[in-house]
Amino acid sequence: MAKIVLLVLPLLSLLLPLLFWCVAQAQLAKEFCVADLASSDTPAGYPCKPQAAVTADDFYYRGLGTTGPTVNPFKISLSSAFVTSFPGVNGLGISAARVDFAVGGVVPLHWHPAATELIFVVEGTLSCGFISATSNNRVYTNTLYKGDIMVLPQGQPHFQYNLGNTTAVALSTYSSPNPGVQTLDFALFANNLPSEVLTKVTLLDDLQVRKLKALFGGTG
Amino acid sequence: MAKIVLLVLPLLSLLLPLLFWCVAQAQLAKEFCVADLASSDTPAGYPCKPQAAVTADDFYYRGLGTTGPTVNPFKISLSSAFVTSFPGVNGLGISAARVDFAVGGVVPLHWHPAATELIFVVEGTLSCGFISATSNNRVYTNTLYKGDIMVLPQGQPHFQYNLGNTTAVALSTYSSPNPGVQTLDFALFANNLPSEVLTKVTLLDDLQVRKLKALFGGTG
Amino acid sequence: MAKIVLLVLPLLSLLLPLLFWCVAQAQLAKEFCVADLASSDTPAGYPCKPQAAVTADDFYYRGLGTTGPTVNPFKISLSSAFVTSFPGVNGLGISAARVDFAVGGVVPLHWHPAATELIFVVEGTLSCGFISATSNNRVYTNTLYKGDIMVLPQGQPHFQYNLGNTTAVALSTYSSPNPGVQTLDFALFANNLPSEVLTKVTLLDDLQVRKLKALFGGTG
Amino acid sequence: MAKIVLLVLPLLSLLLPLLFWCVAQAQLAKEFCVADLASSDTPAGYPCKPQAAVTADDFYYRGLGTTGPTVNPFKISLSSAFVTSFPGVNGLGISAARVDFAVGGVVPLHWHPAATELIFVVEGTLSCGFISATSNNRVYTNTLYKGDIMVLPQGQPHFQYNLGNTTAVALSTYSSPNPGVQTLDFALFANNLPSEVLTKVTLLDDLQVRKLKALFGGTG
Amino acid sequence: MAKIVLLVLPLLSLLLPLLFWCVAQAQLAKEFCVADLASSDTPAGYPCKPQAAVTADDFYYRGLGTTGPTVNPFKISLSSAFVTSFPGVNGLGISAARVDFAVGGVVPLHWHPAATELIFVVEGTLSCGFISATSNNRVYTNTLYKGDIMVLPQGQPHFQYNLGNTTAVALSTYSSPNPGVQTLDFALFANNLPSEVLTKVTLLDDLQVRKLKALFGGTG
Amino acid sequence: MAKIVLLVLPLLSLLLPLLFWCVAQAQLAKEFCVADLASSDTPAGYPCKPQAAVTADDFYYRGLGTTGPTVNPFKISLSSAFVTSFPGVNGLGISAARVDFAVGGVVPLHWHPAATELIFVVEGTLSCGFISATSNNRVYTNTLYKGDIMVLPQGQPHFQYNLGNTTAVALSTYSSPNPGVQTLDFALFANNLPSEVLTKVTLLDDLQVRKLKALFGGTG
Repeated sequence: MAKIVLLVLPLLSLLLPLLFWCVAQAQLAKEFCVADLASSDTPAGYPCKPQAAVTADDFYYRGLGTTGPTVNPFKISLSSAFVTSFPGVNGLGISAARVDFAVGGVVPLHWHPAATELIFVVEGTLSCGFISATSNNRVYTNTLYKGDIMVLPQGQPHFQYNLGNTTAVALSTYSSPNPGVQTLDFALFANNLPSEVLTKVTLLDDLQVRKLKALFGGTG
Repeated sequence: MAKIVLLVLPLLSLLLPLLFWCVAQAQLAKEFCVADLASSDTPAGYPCKPQAAVTADDFYYRGLGTTGPTVNPFKISLSSAFVTSFPGVNGLGISAARVDFAVGGVVPLHWHPAATELIFVVEGTLSCGFISATSNNRVYTNTLYKGDIMVLPQGQPHFQYNLGNTTAVALSTYSSPNPGVQTLDFALFANNLPSEVLTKVTLLDDLQVRKLKALFGGTG
Repeated sequence: MAKIVLLVLPLLSLLLPLLFWCVAQAQLAKEFCVADLASSDTPAGYPCKPQAAVTADDFYYRGLGTTGPTVNPFKISLSSAFVTSFPGVNGLGISAARVDFAVGGVVPLHWHPAATELIFVVEGTLSCGFISATSNNRVYTNTLYKGDIMVLPQGQPHFQYNLGNTTAVALSTYSSPNPGVQTLDFALFANNLPSEVLTKVTLLDDLQVRKLKALFGGTG
Repeated sequence: MAKIVLLVLPLLSLLLPLLFWCVAQAQLAKEFCVADLASSDTPAGYPCKPQAAVTADDFYYRGLGTTGPTVNPFKISLSSAFVTSFPGVNGLGISAARVDFAVGGVVPLHWHPAATELIFVVEGTLSCGFISATSNNRVYTNTLYKGDIMVLPQGQPHFQYNLGNTTAVALSTYSSPNPGVQTLDFALFANNLPSEVLTKVTLLDDLQVRKLKALFGGTG
Repeated sequence: MAKIVLLVLPLLSLLLPLLFWCVAQAQLAKEFCVADLASSDTPAGYPCKPQAAVTADDFYYRGLGTTGPTVNPFKISLSSAFVTSFPGVNGLGISAARVDFAVGGVVPLHWHPAATELIFVVEGTLSCGFISATSNNRVYTNTLYKGDIMVLPQGQPHFQYNLGNTTAVALSTYSSPNPGVQTLDFALFANNLPSEVLTKVTLLDDLQVRKLKALFGGTG
Repeated sequence: MAKIVLLVLPLLSLLLPLLFWCVAQAQLAKEFCVADLASSDTPAGYPCKPQAAVTADDFYYRGLGTTGPTVNPFKISLSSAFVTSFPGVNGLGISAARVDFAVGGVVPLHWHPAATELIFVVEGTLSCGFISATSNNRVYTNTLYKGDIMVLPQGQPHFQYNLGNTTAVALSTYSSPNPGVQTLDFALFANNLPSEVLTKVTLLDDLQVRKLKALFGGTG
């Protein structure tokens, strides 16, 4: 077989233009869809950037290499690579974020409406837990050491906090290019939901509600 | 054409056994999958009950015709037709629940990890709102009158309460046979999540946490 | 923990602008996608309306509160809240319709190519059935009283009719924002499919075909 | 590089057992799932046959090479390779069937609740059409010659009939391992749906209903 | 019932405009989505062509009726009906291709990143195999005669070659409207991937790499 | 509101048993599905372990904290947390693996039939590339430094190699609990695919094939 190939090689050089035309025909397929963020989103993600405009940079994100902006009062820094900042993940069912925890740092109770999270400890020691409604609101908590991972199922409220005396760093990845983040404190206290409605639907005390609305900038 | 059919009719009576054998061959297909609740669940739902054991009752649920058990202290009654009680919806992407609101009744803040809810007001007047993290934790609230519907997107925390001086009734349907329910108060206060962890990850005051743990039966 | 929060409260007021910038960063996510009906549909639904233009009204539909337009000769009124009239359900896997049945009213045999239906009886008594090819074309029929539900699996032909001496009302919800409706009589008799083709592929008599074509406005 | 490989070759022979252990570790993955038809189906398909029991035969189906059993009175022969007879397609989103049309042969009006069909004409000439509810019940019909294909969207009623004076053969493939088949005549006339219900929900004449019930073996 | 219909027929002629208005209301649904290839693709496929512009031709593809362009040096001809040439399959989870094999013809090792293939032998005899990583890289090979089918699971490398002394023809269908084709030789040797990288990541000899780069037009 | 709660507290202690019964009713939902690895897999994953047997350990995986077994001759160590070793990810659309690269270490050309990969550099510097058939087999390559991520779309062949003079470590996550791994060298050379078939379908020289079959333990 191999010898035959060698013999037909000169012949083939004549056929190459035709060959490549065929290849082009056979290979019109959507293997990825880099987001064109200037277009309107759809339920399945953003429209695709034209193929000719795609470069290797579209699949590469450098922003997680350094500490992101601080989120107060939680003593953490957060940097995310969701589709809106990393267009290469559009339509591909995955994205990432990095959290840096100062000593005493906490990722407050939150959940992702559209994604499961898988957290990996880059350095330090974390406590990580989630609450499952299924089994009588049971809490599943683990201590995570450097190199450990934990899975936090879609839509379940979860938290992490630094257990150690040094900075901790975690990389989280998500089963969606656009996982969303519902943070309890922001959802309850960082908007204009009237206090009397909030106390009615949470049974929190009015005083508690007003205090945290003040902290998180909520009104009403 | 029709006349030909009439002529071949006597002939066909001879062929019917063969005909039905063919039909049976051609029609082995999974058009539904009534849950066999005694078997282990899978990520896509329960295994199917044998076809021969399926009856019309499997597709019918009578439990929503009357008021369900009371959920205190919220002055509501709740009755749900999820796959675990209504096996006919297994694998079919839909389920239902009924809520009866006494005067002052409240469905407390909660969300469905795996389903969008569509609420329909059977009688009375409700206030219904959800909180969207996407647009700075904005609250979208509507007053719903008899016959109105509202959609509550997957994973977003939402609430309803009775606005009127009479009982209200709502039928909610879900985009999943098994939508799950994460109720804020139960998630925070009805388990053994230690109070010092809970205050750390929610910023709620310790006093508030202990008070609601007492109300909802939590420990720690 | 709670005390510490109180102490840092004045400090935090200075950090709030930064805090909210971070929140905005962290929360760019697609939690819903209200349809922009003026744009072209895609296989996954309509492109999303810009976030800033979304209001609470987009998630609310009032049209099911009253009787819809009459569908003759079936003695029913029909009003639907599919994505094309209720843009808030776009991409969310659910939608609804209301049917009012006069005495003798019938929803004729039809099916939904892309959705399972869950019917809820708001008032009156209905007979509701579907035909399953899987088990030798067996018919599964139930009598539905006020408050009952029945599930009608995707793509299976089904019907309802009023069993009582009073008006009946049903709310149907669907496992798709755009379920589609294939009504047997309309599919067969309300178009220009030539009668000789129709008799050939259904074995209906030519006379029958012409009579119903006349009723439903078909030609050919 | 290539030279280095040659040098390390003797060395590697010692490491091969370890190598293969690693490979085995790295490659535990579900690339296919041949149906274990003796187990209960699930909404996502059948459980998988043990890997060790899988052979090349599981992915191969010989039954479409010859004419299947006749379906009367339609002058066609039908042979299908759905998951229930071809377990290798389980979970893989595809299956097939072969139809042989005698002169005058007809595949009567039917639809697939859970699959799009793509029909390919192996020999002969067919008329093929489907009815779309979306555009006022419009019929889309094409004449298909040898080698042509046509797509018939999920849940839309469609038909084929032989246009020529010779036998025709078609291969249909489906976007599901278990597409289901709802045949109009069988759904209406091959069961015990009472005639008075059937006339009510289809507006067919009672005489017509009784005649076709006689033809297709229905009762009631 | 049937008699009543006849009596109301004259009456109904007056109501038909209203009837059709209702039908139009009830039937705004997306039963198909013919690709508008001039618009940007999305992760779920192309936006839909306006309904009014859709014709029967959109669902019909004639290009597979004749031999496609030759792919050298493999002695095959290839013609594909993916969404980019057959817009009617957009969003419908199926597409097709035809391969003609000269004597000695080979479809070289390739895989489809986003689709399972089902191959049907129209004429001739083929050897067809795929390699499964799951079971220690086992090869599953079958000899396929006229009329046989074989399923080739998504992402698994596979090949076909003509076993006979005559031309062979195969129709392949795919579980995606846009299956993609990764051909080993093109992926390795028809681009500018530097030879030293290629030898490093494949362990192929440098001489082999350069020879096949010359054959397939690669550089570097 | 808050005061009312305090008043009804003693009363509520009496109602708690009822309350929890209601909660249990309302919360029977599948929020996760830890794999029961002793049962047969299905196309959607493994059946779920009984809820009562689930512990926090099921969501936690410690195996990525240390170097995995060596894969020769590639100078890498590989440790994976797919569903078969980490049952908590079952049904959740995500999993992970860790690779340690010695100096000169290479992850040879491979692809994942059922998942997109997102690679994160824990330490060191890597070259990472993938080949896209869509755009004329173009190679997209990036140099990844500590903290960088790159996305490798589903089914596309890709590679990584250590660019530095020190060990490098990467964490890869996948958009599937069971991504599968097709490694080119193993697929071609680590089985009994006959050499004459392999040369025919790859155009590799017979000598090359035999040499690598020797290296990777293939026969034939």
